Amino acid sequence: MITIQQIQERSIALRDNRTFEMLVVGVIILSALLIGAKTYPIPSAVTQIILWLDVGITFLFLFEIIVRFIAEPNKKRFFHNGWNVFDTLVVVVSLIPIDNSDMALVGRLVRVFRVLRMVSIIPELRTLLNSLVRALPQLGYVVLLMFIIFYIYAAVGATFFAEINPVLWGDISISLLTLFRVMTFEDWTDVMYETMAVYPLSWSYYLTFIFFTAFAFLNMVIGIVVNVLEDEHAKERAEKAEEDGSATLNELRDEIQELKALIINLKK
Amino acid sequence: MITIQQIQERSIALRDNRTFEMLVVGVIILSALLIGAKTYPIPSAVTQIILWLDVGITFLFLFEIIVRFIAEPNKKRFFHNGWNVFDTLVVVVSLIPIDNSDMALVGRLVRVFRVLRMVSIIPELRTLLNSLVRALPQLGYVVLLMFIIFYIYAAVGATFFAEINPVLWGDISISLLTLFRVMTFEDWTDVMYETMAVYPLSWSYYLTFIFFTAFAFLNMVIGIVVNVLEDEHAKERAEKAEEDGSATLNELRDEIQELKALIINLKK
Amino acid sequence: MITIQQIQERSIALRDNRTFEMLVVGVIILSALLIGAKTYPIPSAVTQIILWLDVGITFLFLFEIIVRFIAEPNKKRFFHNGWNVFDTLVVVVSLIPIDNSDMALVGRLVRVFRVLRMVSIIPELRTLLNSLVRALPQLGYVVLLMFIIFYIYAAVGATFFAEINPVLWGDISISLLTLFRVMTFEDWTDVMYETMAVYPLSWSYYLTFIFFTAFAFLNMVIGIVVNVLEDEHAKERAEKAEEDGSATLNELRDEIQELKALIINLKK
Amino acid sequence: MITIQQIQERSIALRDNRTFEMLVVGVIILSALLIGAKTYPIPSAVTQIILWLDVGITFLFLFEIIVRFIAEPNKKRFFHNGWNVFDTLVVVVSLIPIDNSDMALVGRLVRVFRVLRMVSIIPELRTLLNSLVRALPQLGYVVLLMFIIFYIYAAVGATFFAEINPVLWGDISISLLTLFRVMTFEDWTDVMYETMAVYPLSWSYYLTFIFFTAFAFLNMVIGIVVNVLEDEHAKERAEKAEEDGSATLNELRDEIQELKALIINLKK
Repeated sequence: MITIQQIQERSIALRDNRTFEMLVVGVIILSALLIGAKTYPIPSAVTQIILWLDVGITFLFLFEIIVRFIAEPNKKRFFHNGWNVFDTLVVVVSLIPIDNSDMALVGRLVRVFRVLRMVSIIPELRTLLNSLVRALPQLGYVVLLMFIIFYIYAAVGATFFAEINPVLWGDISISLLTLFRVMTFEDWTDVMYETMAVYPLSWSYYLTFIFFTAFAFLNMVIGIVVNVLEDEHAKERAEKAEEDGSATLNELRDEIQELKALIINLKK
Repeated sequence: MITIQQIQERSIALRDNRTFEMLVVGVIILSALLIGAKTYPIPSAVTQIILWLDVGITFLFLFEIIVRFIAEPNKKRFFHNGWNVFDTLVVVVSLIPIDNSDMALVGRLVRVFRVLRMVSIIPELRTLLNSLVRALPQLGYVVLLMFIIFYIYAAVGATFFAEINPVLWGDISISLLTLFRVMTFEDWTDVMYETMAVYPLSWSYYLTFIFFTAFAFLNMVIGIVVNVLEDEHAKERAEKAEEDGSATLNELRDEIQELKALIINLKK
Repeated sequence: MITIQQIQERSIALRDNRTFEMLVVGVIILSALLIGAKTYPIPSAVTQIILWLDVGITFLFLFEIIVRFIAEPNKKRFFHNGWNVFDTLVVVVSLIPIDNSDMALVGRLVRVFRVLRMVSIIPELRTLLNSLVRALPQLGYVVLLMFIIFYIYAAVGATFFAEINPVLWGDISISLLTLFRVMTFEDWTDVMYETMAVYPLSWSYYLTFIFFTAFAFLNMVIGIVVNVLEDEHAKERAEKAEEDGSATLNELRDEIQELKALIINLKK
Repeated sequence: MITIQQIQERSIALRDNRTFEMLVVGVIILSALLIGAKTYPIPSAVTQIILWLDVGITFLFLFEIIVRFIAEPNKKRFFHNGWNVFDTLVVVVSLIPIDNSDMALVGRLVRVFRVLRMVSIIPELRTLLNSLVRALPQLGYVVLLMFIIFYIYAAVGATFFAEINPVLWGDISISLLTLFRVMTFEDWTDVMYETMAVYPLSWSYYLTFIFFTAFAFLNMVIGIVVNVLEDEHAKERAEKAEEDGSATLNELRDEIQELKALIINLKK
């Protein structure tokens, strides 16, 4: 009979097995292709195959998550890792049998999120995403300032332009969307000419908005660039410090002072 | 009886009270939400509540500005701070009773500007905005050059294209707006094809304009980036100088020269 | 009687006079405003005033250029300066009396170019423009590569799509314009969907074109940024070298070697 | 009689001849102009001339490639160079006589690719293109992440929006194209308003997509910039190291320690 410890050891071996990892990556890609295939009109015979493949993928993912769970020495820490929680959720929701058509869409959506497992399984992508997420809060105040600009302009827009075109300026949330559209320069002159017919000076509303957001956006980009460069400099300095570890100016000074003491000693 | 000094001390205590600050921030957010809410169709009962809340907010802002004014030791300097002037204006205009419908719009506008008080109350946002404003004049000459380019092209456009489409090229101010539109690439080919029907070579007008403005804009961005990087370098150098405070090459040289003097001394 | 030398001295004094310079700048601005004013419908009385002002401006510019010419000690070098040639041309062409309506347009155009005199008279703008022009040839090869990409795609486009829409793809020069439009993302999907109706795979034509040009453009921007940064670094290094003038590692080594010689000497 | 070696020597001389190189560049430019000319309606007499010129160009290119092949000392290595393979292919395909109209298009296409020979013959362009290609794989993971984002959104779009507008969201590949269009902001609001009519919350689909791709794109640009700057730094450091070769802190320490030994020696 196999003991629990043996199961765990085999799980660890399996989890760290390169072939097993490749298999999982392959299955994720297959799962992504199936999702793509389902968006084409397909004969019912193929639908049946896809259905069976889908069940196979779900169970392989379930097996993999169980292996990873057993392999984890500290069971509690397993769910502290956001990626593990995500993987488990995707698998568990896939397991729920779905009849209702509304739920069917949710089921399809969950299958789509399986593609994101690619990020959870490739360490480089995980690092990349983490660094993206980590950069965000540093820009928090710029984002807040940008939101305040948007909110004020949306309030002004909804107050003055709501009667001109309720589809674009009906209330503050629609106005926010319209302003985002203006920021992307998407047919913004159509929006402007419409309001200029009533308020001939409303071009100043759009131009100042574009200047403010472009300016804030520029600041955001510069903020990111400066952050990145600072990280680079910090790394460089750390490397340099290590290199220089052999001799510093302070060490030299100490050596020279020792010398002086020796010579003074000599003199006596 | 409370003396004037006691009132001032209490005002300072209240102004610097963290809870009071949080309350004011909360009231600003509430005020922003009310402005948003008013853009939706709302039952008259709710309108009444909003009206009362609005009065409450106005008086709380009035109270806060009075507290800040009393807390300020130097009354004259209070209005030297642009943010204080702005806050006072917003509150005072809110207090004016409005009947006329034209003025009602101004009243709503002032209420919108209350959201900007968020910037005046959060120090980080104030710093951010100040640094944005401070960066502007450094770019003054690039902006002037860009305006000259715009003005020349607008004059040429209004001279040649006014008869083709007076809506876009009727006079120089409309032409400036049209050129801004071309710079944002918003349906610029429609504008171009229209004039190319009369002047087949007018594509060169648009292409050179796009190149010149893109080039000037690029220079502006690079100007900002270089400014920012220089600031960073200056900071870094300052930090380094402080770190290195312990031993410099000059100090070492002095030490060695002392040594030499000692040895020469020894020799005699 | 005034001698020629006295005239030259007075010209130099006048040219370098700050008030005279301000006057010329003021007249240039007035000239720019007149150009703008002429694009509006104006009563004939005002037209007459503008006409007289225009003559006045022309003669003041003529006077100023003569003063500058006389003030110049080396008459030959005067026309080696591109800005002087430009200023003279603008004034001379303004002096030619114009009757023919075709020439009238040229006359108006020359008046527009007077605004550019602003650049020739403000040294900071002149420096800015010079540095822009100087940056261009460094990017020569990137521009050449970009043109080759454009040319190849235009040739392919004119070959395959000419029959689909001759207005957009009729010959290679029109195709180049259409591709520039695609690069600015201006209604590029309309262009694409049209050709995709005949060649379903033509999306790859547009996507690869967008990628190549975006990539080349990115390289151009990076090229400029790196150039600018290198200039900065060179400046910084020069400053540092000056600062460090006081003590270098080499000097220290020499000092120490002198010391050693002394000690060895001592030993004997 | 000429020996094989003499032929090779003459080939090398011809290949490295500056005039011959200029001639080839001139012929490439002529070939490019011919391609452009053919997109205009031309009288049949000129067509005949173009035909003869085309044959001439083909044979001159054939001659040049043979010269380069003979000049190459190691024949095997000749085809290890991608540019040589490209040049040979373009010439060989040009030589195939074409009757069928489908093949005629391929023939024209190959003639277009001759313009790319400009890149293969100008070393600066070759270097530029090589550096562009070399920068790509470093960004591999960012591109992969971007593709995953695109794929997930395309799968969701094809699942939910296919029935709303099959032209835009019919299957996953069309959805990918539509999303690329949304990323370029090309009439993206039309796409959005259409789906918002059915799913009022679908604006969040577009906004999150725009944020994710803009963010990933920003990272890509920063990645390139940092790479370029690192290369610059590496170069700079290498230069500095060479300069500093004369004296290092370690050398100084060694000198001082020698001194100490001398003095201690002296003391005994």
